[in-house]
Amino acid sequence: MLTSAQSERLRVVLVRTRNPLNIGAAARAMSNFGFHHLRVVDPYAPAFEEARSAVGASSVLARAEKFERVAEAVADCTLVVGTTALGHRHLHHTLRRSEDAARLVRQRLHSSNVALLFGSEKFGLTNDDLSHCHWLLRIPTQEENISMNLGQAVAVCLYELIRASRVPRQPEKLPSASAAEVERITTRLLEALEASGFLDLRRVRDSEQRIRRLVRRLHLPACDAVIWLGIFRQIVWKLRSGRSQAD
Amino acid sequence: MLTSAQSERLRVVLVRTRNPLNIGAAARAMSNFGFHHLRVVDPYAPAFEEARSAVGASSVLARAEKFERVAEAVADCTLVVGTTALGHRHLHHTLRRSEDAARLVRQRLHSSNVALLFGSEKFGLTNDDLSHCHWLLRIPTQEENISMNLGQAVAVCLYELIRASRVPRQPEKLPSASAAEVERITTRLLEALEASGFLDLRRVRDSEQRIRRLVRRLHLPACDAVIWLGIFRQIVWKLRSGRSQAD
Repeated sequence: MLTSAQSERLRVVLVRTRNPLNIGAAARAMSNFGFHHLRVVDPYAPAFEEARSAVGASSVLARAEKFERVAEAVADCTLVVGTTALGHRHLHHTLRRSEDAARLVRQRLHSSNVALLFGSEKFGLTNDDLSHCHWLLRIPTQEENISMNLGQAVAVCLYELIRASRVPRQPEKLPSASAAEVERITTRLLEALEASGFLDLRRVRDSEQRIRRLVRRLHLPACDAVIWLGIFRQIVWKLRSGRSQAD
Repeated sequence: MLTSAQSERLRVVLVRTRNPLNIGAAARAMSNFGFHHLRVVDPYAPAFEEARSAVGASSVLARAEKFERVAEAVADCTLVVGTTALGHRHLHHTLRRSEDAARLVRQRLHSSNVALLFGSEKFGLTNDDLSHCHWLLRIPTQEENISMNLGQAVAVCLYELIRASRVPRQPEKLPSASAAEVERITTRLLEALEASGFLDLRRVRDSEQRIRRLVRRLHLPACDAVIWLGIFRQIVWKLRSGRSQAD
């Protein structure tokens, strides 16, 4: 069970949703279970407008925010959780069953914002979307029919968050850096890796995603975000000024 | 979690459903969670036919049985549970939250069949329907928006039946890097901070200790130790070669 302060900190993020009925269904489940912040990333535009203008569209839908990129939609969160039907590409991330995942999400909601990401009906979350996630949540569906309807998946995840559980609260770790801070640090690190020649040496197709995941595996604490940003900024500055002196 | 023998004993009964999409959604959730017996009572006829003939209609839907009356649809069950949004008329029945209800349903499924009844989208279950029920299940929705979409309600109820009742063992966090690896990374980072001028700018007595603690707060995973070492080694090399070229 969540307090209203906890509920207030959850962001449901729908990435590239195609079907307006699914956006509406997600909003309805949020309203049923007391969540308010719906965000859509790069939706099929007519779907979003149609869902918003539907008769009886809820206040959740009316107040939904639209973003161009996942990074922007999760910027104010310290924990970003992707939802998925299990697949080979997810080996990069820790995968948690919904029962277990909900406990961790509830814990984090005591102190800061959490984003729960749902991918498109057809393709789910891409590797690029997933590189913004700290870990993945899986609803334990049957192997033979693993893929859930989007609106139903949202309902089940939110239900799992609000259902009563008697699991005792765990002590908090150091509060984590927000996704925006982590992304700023990632950007500086990428600049440093490029300026130092590191990325050139190991040129691979998805190196940016790999680095993004690498940084997310660190669990950067909020109290250290500024100093890491300063470190990489200084390194980048020095690498670039060094290079220009040498050229 | 249910055995397949238990799953086999559940009957999902949709009473006077109007919308073919909802019949399809109920069937899909059943298929996701491993249930097979869908029964419809007095459905809006075109809705049932449309749902059954939909492209990709599941085997659950193809094998759905149609009944005229609730009594017939629940005849082979020893426990009949109605689902409801809380209302005044339910005072005749014991009302159980879904978390509790699922436990009782699972118990009964060990030995005999259980029917789970869902009413029409608009009116729910009538008093006559309810008179066939032993007790009622309520999903704990918000007072302000108590009524769920039918397909989502079915998904949530079935999920509650199959979810693990004891929180499963947490998957291991990523194994942490050894102290030796962390110290090697710290050493390289310190070299990078010195070569970049970062430490000079912020000259404090115990800067080395501060950086050592900073690195330890990251919880570096063992699988990433080599790459972080490589990153800082390359940065140091580049910073030094840049400087020496410039000197």
